[in-house]
Amino acid sequence: MNLVEKLLKGDEKSAARLISLIENGAEAGFKAVESIFPYTGKAYILGITGPPGAGKSTLIDKIALRFAKENKKIGVIAVDPSSIHNKGAFLGDRVRMKEAEKIGIFIRSMANRGYGGGLAKATIGAVYILEGLGKEIIIIESVGVGQSEKDIFYLADTVISVLSPDFGDDIQLIKAGVVELGDIVVINKADLEGAKEAFRSLSAYITMSNIDNKKSWIPRLFLVSAKDKTGIDGLIDAISEHKKYLEKQSELEELQSKKAKGLILSLLKEILMEKVSEKLINSGTFQQIVDKVIKREIDLYMAANSLIKEILKE
Amino acid sequence: MNLVEKLLKGDEKSAARLISLIENGAEAGFKAVESIFPYTGKAYILGITGPPGAGKSTLIDKIALRFAKENKKIGVIAVDPSSIHNKGAFLGDRVRMKEAEKIGIFIRSMANRGYGGGLAKATIGAVYILEGLGKEIIIIESVGVGQSEKDIFYLADTVISVLSPDFGDDIQLIKAGVVELGDIVVINKADLEGAKEAFRSLSAYITMSNIDNKKSWIPRLFLVSAKDKTGIDGLIDAISEHKKYLEKQSELEELQSKKAKGLILSLLKEILMEKVSEKLINSGTFQQIVDKVIKREIDLYMAANSLIKEILKE
Repeated sequence: MNLVEKLLKGDEKSAARLISLIENGAEAGFKAVESIFPYTGKAYILGITGPPGAGKSTLIDKIALRFAKENKKIGVIAVDPSSIHNKGAFLGDRVRMKEAEKIGIFIRSMANRGYGGGLAKATIGAVYILEGLGKEIIIIESVGVGQSEKDIFYLADTVISVLSPDFGDDIQLIKAGVVELGDIVVINKADLEGAKEAFRSLSAYITMSNIDNKKSWIPRLFLVSAKDKTGIDGLIDAISEHKKYLEKQSELEELQSKKAKGLILSLLKEILMEKVSEKLINSGTFQQIVDKVIKREIDLYMAANSLIKEILKE
Repeated sequence: MNLVEKLLKGDEKSAARLISLIENGAEAGFKAVESIFPYTGKAYILGITGPPGAGKSTLIDKIALRFAKENKKIGVIAVDPSSIHNKGAFLGDRVRMKEAEKIGIFIRSMANRGYGGGLAKATIGAVYILEGLGKEIIIIESVGVGQSEKDIFYLADTVISVLSPDFGDDIQLIKAGVVELGDIVVINKADLEGAKEAFRSLSAYITMSNIDNKKSWIPRLFLVSAKDKTGIDGLIDAISEHKKYLEKQSELEELQSKKAKGLILSLLKEILMEKVSEKLINSGTFQQIVDKVIKREIDLYMAANSLIKEILKE
């Protein structure tokens, strides 16, 4: 049996191996996705995003355990774009998802590779593979600001934004982005000082943001303590409520189209830049232009624009 | 006098206006850079990066005030890639940089625009313009993980990574990336519980990371309380130490080349994706492919790859 056949029979080692192939950009990994593709499209994808320190891993542990009690098959993909040199340390994740791992929930951490910066390519592949493995609920964790957070929004059916009250003033800075992206917003660490105040402030913000724009789903807000397992029930209910909303909502087509476009563009960006970087780095033209920039003969915009002209053969 | 002439005479309103033009992608902004370019290249660029809640703004306020006492002309660019819909809230920044703003330090906040996700294009432009304005020290703040953090590394002469002890376990997650990027690493909020422990742990990590790789600069680590202004002296000394190191180090050329390449590629990525997205979004082919993805006739990799073939006219 080859890797794909084993995967489709539920073999986790084959899943891990296939994800590694995709992470490393190996052609065999993407060929495998083509064979797996007909078996995909049924899992529910849950995105969990928020800044470092918000307690995402602990929360995921609790959510995964809850779904496991309903006999759901669960996979977790933890995405960490924070390391520039591919040295992301994932010990923390594994420790905090200990309970989930103990009962056999499949957990995979993925780090950033190479220049491209993005993670769409590897994360999308991992989702296809976990679907091939028969997972019914796939939880994607993203240490997110910027592009990786947007990718989560495009990829997930339901996005949960997680905040911690101890960000203090900085909560102002992330409020807008968080509320914009989350179908559900969680203030974690409910026991900490300032939690209730953060809840009230965010609650008011959400109400205000939704007075004008008549979105049919208003983000649900929860005060949770993942550590003490309080507030998880309400959160699980809200997830299934959002799932039901998606099943019947009239704007579903528009949303699907928006998400598909976002994913295609993210993926295109990564693959295109890989191709372009590879070509450039080995080209004499690139080195000449770099030299001109260092000698300050041309500015950076001129440098980039002249290379783009060549790439697009304009 | 036109905007550029006024800028070169030190007019801040013209600087603000030109930065807005560049932020909005207006051709006039980039034309202006061409005229300003001969006057640039002399400022010292300081990058301050770290996760939300680390206290970057307060720290910048203190650093800027210190340099201002030496009669340096200072500009601050605060970059926030956290908002997907261009609604970044910068009130927090302005409040925490109150003292700096009071004594006339030029502060400019920049939010994320549109799909591209990146900020290289606008940030690079803002640096050129602040140099044209005669600023001698330019401080760039980035709420950073991922691409914007890398851009700071390419753009700045000295990078300061800021951490807060209250990230707890998550400090593990960001340790690698932070130490990799920072010429100087700051543990802020020295008064908080766990600060000394975080210091010891990071100190050991830095020592260990530098046993093998014989880099000539080993990151300096400081315990700082920006709020109480303690530890700022050592930090300022370390900045000038790093500046001196750069002036004479033998690997400077290699470093310059690496940074120039990084900046050109970041810029190229943004501009290329803008051009490509614009073309695609209005093209029938793109819509056809999106429809095929929604109907699950093709997977996302096929979708992206077939579009890339067309773009590169392969």
